[in-house]
Amino acid sequence: MSDFISLEDIEFQVFDVLDTENLCERDRFSDHDRSTCTGALDLAMRIATSEFFPHAAKLDANEPHYDGTKVELIPELANALTAFAEAGFHATHADHEHGGMQLPATVASACAAIFAAANLSAASYPLLTSAAANLLAIFGTDQQKRDYMVPMYEGRYFGTMCLSEPHAGSSLGDIRCSAQPMDNGNYRIRGSKMWISGGEHELSENIVHLVLAKLPDAPPGVKGISLFVVPRRRENGNGGYEDNHVALAGLNHKMGQRGIVNCLLNFGEGGDCIGQLVGEPNRGLAQMFHMMNEARLEVGLGSVAVAYAGYRHSLAYAAQRPQGRHPDQRDPQASQVMIIEHADVRRMLLRQKSIVEGGLALCLYAARLVDEERTAAQQQDRHAAHLLLELLTPVCKAWCSHYGLQANELAIQVLGGYGYTRDYPVERLYRDNRINPIHEGTNGIQSIDLLGRKVAMENGAAMSTLVRLVKDCIAAAGAHPALAKHAADLANAVDLLDNTTKALQAAGARGEVRLFLANSHVYMEMFGHVLIAWQWLRQANAAAALIAAGDGVARHDFLHGKLAACRYFFEWELPDIEPKARLLARLDRTCLDTLPEWL
Amino acid sequence: MSDFISLEDIEFQVFDVLDTENLCERDRFSDHDRSTCTGALDLAMRIATSEFFPHAAKLDANEPHYDGTKVELIPELANALTAFAEAGFHATHADHEHGGMQLPATVASACAAIFAAANLSAASYPLLTSAAANLLAIFGTDQQKRDYMVPMYEGRYFGTMCLSEPHAGSSLGDIRCSAQPMDNGNYRIRGSKMWISGGEHELSENIVHLVLAKLPDAPPGVKGISLFVVPRRRENGNGGYEDNHVALAGLNHKMGQRGIVNCLLNFGEGGDCIGQLVGEPNRGLAQMFHMMNEARLEVGLGSVAVAYAGYRHSLAYAAQRPQGRHPDQRDPQASQVMIIEHADVRRMLLRQKSIVEGGLALCLYAARLVDEERTAAQQQDRHAAHLLLELLTPVCKAWCSHYGLQANELAIQVLGGYGYTRDYPVERLYRDNRINPIHEGTNGIQSIDLLGRKVAMENGAAMSTLVRLVKDCIAAAGAHPALAKHAADLANAVDLLDNTTKALQAAGARGEVRLFLANSHVYMEMFGHVLIAWQWLRQANAAAALIAAGDGVARHDFLHGKLAACRYFFEWELPDIEPKARLLARLDRTCLDTLPEWL
Repeated sequence: MSDFISLEDIEFQVFDVLDTENLCERDRFSDHDRSTCTGALDLAMRIATSEFFPHAAKLDANEPHYDGTKVELIPELANALTAFAEAGFHATHADHEHGGMQLPATVASACAAIFAAANLSAASYPLLTSAAANLLAIFGTDQQKRDYMVPMYEGRYFGTMCLSEPHAGSSLGDIRCSAQPMDNGNYRIRGSKMWISGGEHELSENIVHLVLAKLPDAPPGVKGISLFVVPRRRENGNGGYEDNHVALAGLNHKMGQRGIVNCLLNFGEGGDCIGQLVGEPNRGLAQMFHMMNEARLEVGLGSVAVAYAGYRHSLAYAAQRPQGRHPDQRDPQASQVMIIEHADVRRMLLRQKSIVEGGLALCLYAARLVDEERTAAQQQDRHAAHLLLELLTPVCKAWCSHYGLQANELAIQVLGGYGYTRDYPVERLYRDNRINPIHEGTNGIQSIDLLGRKVAMENGAAMSTLVRLVKDCIAAAGAHPALAKHAADLANAVDLLDNTTKALQAAGARGEVRLFLANSHVYMEMFGHVLIAWQWLRQANAAAALIAAGDGVARHDFLHGKLAACRYFFEWELPDIEPKARLLARLDRTCLDTLPEWL
Repeated sequence: MSDFISLEDIEFQVFDVLDTENLCERDRFSDHDRSTCTGALDLAMRIATSEFFPHAAKLDANEPHYDGTKVELIPELANALTAFAEAGFHATHADHEHGGMQLPATVASACAAIFAAANLSAASYPLLTSAAANLLAIFGTDQQKRDYMVPMYEGRYFGTMCLSEPHAGSSLGDIRCSAQPMDNGNYRIRGSKMWISGGEHELSENIVHLVLAKLPDAPPGVKGISLFVVPRRRENGNGGYEDNHVALAGLNHKMGQRGIVNCLLNFGEGGDCIGQLVGEPNRGLAQMFHMMNEARLEVGLGSVAVAYAGYRHSLAYAAQRPQGRHPDQRDPQASQVMIIEHADVRRMLLRQKSIVEGGLALCLYAARLVDEERTAAQQQDRHAAHLLLELLTPVCKAWCSHYGLQANELAIQVLGGYGYTRDYPVERLYRDNRINPIHEGTNGIQSIDLLGRKVAMENGAAMSTLVRLVKDCIAAAGAHPALAKHAADLANAVDLLDNTTKALQAAGARGEVRLFLANSHVYMEMFGHVLIAWQWLRQANAAAALIAAGDGVARHDFLHGKLAACRYFFEWELPDIEPKARLLARLDRTCLDTLPEWL
């Protein structure tokens, strides 16, 4: 049986590449050191292996079923989530005072990757819950924290985010859900919310919905959106609970990710549905973006994790499946070789490895920025980390989901006909991952966010920081002659990115906004490839340093695998940015010029 | 409701691009003219629309079920196949003397594309059957033709191809299935065959298995394989039928294509299983390749057809789904636009269009070569067509299945969250198409066939023909100034392909066979892109000529759509060959150098 993620890789990334030990010297993490971090990772691996991984296929085959009164799910899921909660994983990153472990986000994200790789559907419940609790930790009143945040960190309540409506998926300015003020300071919530993950189930004592709605006389568009906390069951004033009239209007039957309930909810249809305002009126979207950004990073991480599981499975298969011989082996009676011996199978494995380990490096780097924006000693460093995180968030989401899916597709191909059957997990992993380029803002929207907003923030401050950091990495590679060509290639690539960005921004500055943004998807692909190449050079620098320091004996294969996958990414993937850069630089108008009626 | 393929496009390709009317002047097709060909296409469209398309989702949701005695399928499938057989579509291309319509293969393939786009699972039964009958038309004895070929052309018997075994999927030299001569000239067949599409069902009076097996004392490897015809039920000598002991050993439960039974069969386990030799002993693989090549072309065509259905559905959706506004429209109260207005949605539609219409052009071009190799006036032209078809077959299979799948993935993305649900067909179409890069020889194997065998045939004769034809097309584009840049780009691309091919062959000639073939997948991608660019320039030439001749009024949008998709392919896709060409030219060793234990 194969595993689903490599703990050796995670520890390499967390400690050798990201130097989490130095983080633990900061006040916030002073209770932690390498051994407590490793302990959390080990525990995550143990629970994921025993409670999450074994029932992933069964969960897929038994999607949520509404029996007329409640949504039913297989019992293994509840057991897994109980084990998760009892181990405290809902609050890995949360403050001690809120009952959290106060671990670095870097380590918390690595734990999340482990659970997501084992069983993304099951892991989605607590990941959403933690993100909802984190939002209330920032914007909630003391009462809201006590009533909702704490039970979510404890894993007794689960959380959701309710943004989309059936007619307004990507265009939140057009939502219609309304909030009517009541005399007691609460609000009556009324409307429909679509695509609500974890929207209805019996897995927790309560469900805490974070709902975007409009106050009476709110300004039109996104400036008139407010945020409300709406429990599934509300206190009845007698110490008990009563129904809050959040009604299941229908389950969505999905291609994959079938273990996480996804549904249409009607708020306030059969009776009063009462919510409380969170934060300021009409500031709801900005506040929700705190949770949304966290969710986008989690989508990127989840994409990588599911792709990682496919990689590990196809790797194990390729190492034990005999088939065929090398093209220069003419004797039909010679033994067949394992398919991992075939160059094209190795290509498919290397491509997967370069995507999943490169993507994981990027996502954990983003998590480290979460730690930096919170705990760096200097305000300017905290601000720089914040801006860089803003810049990287759409790329983590879009690049990792786009290429993670391609990795899953390759895992199927490695298994051949067997990979196409439901007896092996790789087709399910593909189906699970197919949602990730869509939800939490489609990749098209992430691309517009990247080019139209993030790159230009504060006169391009985040881009400048990024270019400087990439150049630092290139300089560090100077210590390792074997990496010289990669370093030179990355230097060219980052210059190309910088020049391309400027050419596009010039069009935007001339007022050609549609043209400026028309090819933003290609810009995202190019941007992401440069980031991943950088993450690969960072990993190769660390691997080369460890080999130089003598770790090449104990970890010989692992470290040489890092160098090989780095080489693969630089030789096979990074050059693909060149035609993209030319298309962007010439402000290609093909898509704009094609009239809808010609299609 | 959307359609699944454009009849206007098919007629454009068949008549305006491929000039099928001139084919009908040849003896073999002298009963046909434009109106009989159009009649066949119209009839295919009508039956596909009324009998195949409506139950495609139901067929997917109700996969074949074995009740202990027989395999059950939904009744709509049997009705569809009856309508198909009664209309004579099992024998569109077959000779009049065998009960066929004797239509050009170009038209027969266009009909097949229509059925495959409507419901690939259902269409797979007759497509396999026709291919099996076509094999017997060439290699069968008169008795075998009477007993098996004719009932297959009539649609009373269905056919299968039985090559793979559980331990030998891609490596046919390692099969173990045996054939023991009997005194009466027949053979006792014994062994297991895996991945048998249409292997067991109650849809036809009989099932005709074409089985690869080894005679006693056959030479090892592929030179010791013989071909047998093995019916599910055999004549009992009293005018009746008895069981021939082909036992269902298990159904395969697949990701998609669930409507076509796929199974493991045991031959001769419960009693004598009797077959007849087809053609010569130990020549079975070469003979089977007649069916295999036809099947490979059908896989390419089927991939394009399924991708076409996804394109048409996502196009219809995009034209009627309002969401968001243009980036320069700041008024939140302005009406939302249809998503087809967004540049990135148009990119996703254009990419699909360029793949599906470009791929269809290639597959129908290959079908025209089938007609040419049979009916061209001069022997040298028939031979040249044969060689070119050999060269294009692996590309039709691999390029169309690889990029067709990418088109299906984009169709899901256009629909967003809805595309991820099973309420819309696009996720099913993706699942259906996912088999095509795998079966009938994986795309990795097609790539080795292309570079290792086809390109070099008869001292590169087929490559020379191809280059000459591409240059003819470039010269023809000289009549249309708007196509000048595309023509110049294609001239550069075909030179690059030619030079890359020579660099690779030089390595092969030096004896570096593994290195020569190590990157053949990339070679296939590059080769395919050049072919598709050629097919787009051919279509653009035809469209420009029609516009110049005044057809631009009646078919304005359609013809401008052809020019737009051609432009898209040349501007957005073709340049991707450049980094691939550099990788190939430098004989990149990354995959070869990476040791399995490093992964």
